Amino acid sequence: MKIVLIGGTGTIGKRVAAALAPGNELIIAGRNSGDIQVDIASAASIENMFRELVTVDACICTAGTGYYGDFHTMTQEHMMPGIGNKLLGQVNLVLIGKNYLSEGGSFTLTSGIAAEHPARNGATVAMLNGAVNSFVLAASQELKKDQRINVVSPGLVADSRERYGALFPGYNLAPMDKVANAYVLSVLGAVNGKILKVYA
Amino acid sequence: MKIVLIGGTGTIGKRVAAALAPGNELIIAGRNSGDIQVDIASAASIENMFRELVTVDACICTAGTGYYGDFHTMTQEHMMPGIGNKLLGQVNLVLIGKNYLSEGGSFTLTSGIAAEHPARNGATVAMLNGAVNSFVLAASQELKKDQRINVVSPGLVADSRERYGALFPGYNLAPMDKVANAYVLSVLGAVNGKILKVYA
Ligand SMILES: NC(=O)c1ccc[n+]([C@@H]2O[C@H](COP(=O)([O-])OP(=O)(O)OC[C@H]3O[C@@H](n4cnc5c(N)ncnc54)[C@H](OP(=O)(O)O)[C@@H]3O)[C@@H](O)[C@H]2O)c1
Ligand SMILES: NC(=O)c1ccc[n+]([C@@H]2O[C@H](COP(=O)([O-])OP(=O)(O)OC[C@H]3O[C@@H](n4cnc5c(N)ncnc54)[C@H](OP(=O)(O)O)[C@@H]3O)[C@@H](O)[C@H]2O)c1
Repeated sequence: MKIVLIGGTGTIGKRVAAALAPGNELIIAGRNSGDIQVDIASAASIENMFRELVTVDACICTAGTGYYGDFHTMTQEHMMPGIGNKLLGQVNLVLIGKNYLSEGGSFTLTSGIAAEHPARNGATVAMLNGAVNSFVLAASQELKKDQRINVVSPGLVADSRERYGALFPGYNLAPMDKVANAYVLSVLGAVNGKILKVYA
Repeated sequence: MKIVLIGGTGTIGKRVAAALAPGNELIIAGRNSGDIQVDIASAASIENMFRELVTVDACICTAGTGYYGDFHTMTQEHMMPGIGNKLLGQVNLVLIGKNYLSEGGSFTLTSGIAAEHPARNGATVAMLNGAVNSFVLAASQELKKDQRINVVSPGLVADSRERYGALFPGYNLAPMDKVANAYVLSVLGAVNGKILKVYA
């Protein structure tokens, strides 16, 4: 299976890469890292990436970020970058990528626990994750050629404890093998239109 | 209670207005209709509206739209207007309006059933509704001065059967009195951080 994994050098992405590398042709994409360069915040860059790939059997995205910060000073300007990459970046991977995805191929996007259980300071990320989840529900009904789409919604992942733990007091750590497994389920299983929650 | 109702001349809004008018000072806002003009797609316009109102005890929004159309020709450009009004418009009503909302005051936003059960052609609206729902969950934890926030998520409302019914085959109609009641519950009740689903 030819798989493109956008964000495959990141915390979650490298675990997904390790899980899917055996037996597959895995192509890692990132802005500055990986085998092929893409900035998902740009529709043109996404189109270029897929043109270069010609076709893929699975497209996984573990890239995207959103603003964390004080709600009382938060403005629309803080939200726009996340809307551009985590939300519309992932949406555009589907809207553009479906034309390059093989019959029976799959998309796997990433949202996060904040959609349901936002942490303090996390209103922007909550909003982005909720949007991605609902988009996936809709897109799963629309894709043709037996294409599937799911979204993995991780909790605070174990490997991010040092980097993000202080932002999420009381959140359980999602074990990396379970997180990676959700992506494997989406790619190699038959599930479609699922929000695969891996909160702990 | 001094209540501003943005979209109060619309299908849902006028029912909410009828339910809340008795015993309250109700101010209807709209782009071209109502007692006071606002375009929620503009943060400056929202700021102007609240400056004019000076203070309110409740802010309700039944305004906002999103693109409906074929998934296979849908692009980011189709999504931007809805992101500007239904999503960021409602978000800005909160981010800006909280400074004008009285102690113990409330926000009530509107999402829709598409967040969970999108219809065909409804990927943009699903995404917007999911975003609004999750934003409200987060905002409810952040507001100070005992301010509350909820979101009403209507199904296809009975009064929209002629206008939108063909887009939603097999969707039950949400009775107008139940829809209006959800807004009343949010404004006059004690609920906070709730997605008030009125699907039928
Ligand atoms: N970490 C957690 O605990 C956690 C929990 C819930 C949800 N999530 C979500 O999971 C996703 C991945 O998180 P992570 O912590 O693994 O991220 P990360 O460690 O920061 O890695 C991000 C990866 O994505 C790439 N990337 C970033 N922006 C990009 C863009 N605009 N276009 C293309 N590639 C881009 C980066 O490579 P380049 O720098 O080379 O572009 C990198 O490979 C995010 O959506 C995050 O919100 C994470
Ligand atoms: N109708 C349904 O069955 C249904 C179902 C689920 C969810 N919803 C949601 O409920 C909300 C209301 O729907 P509706 O059918 O009642 O809408 P509607 O009949 O089209 O009424 C919209 C109202 O909002 C005002 N408005 C529109 N854009 C505005 C803007 N940018 N700034 C300020 N005011 C604006 C309009 O007045 P002006 O033209 O004067 O601005 C009008 O009063 C929408 O978010 C919709 O997605 C509706």
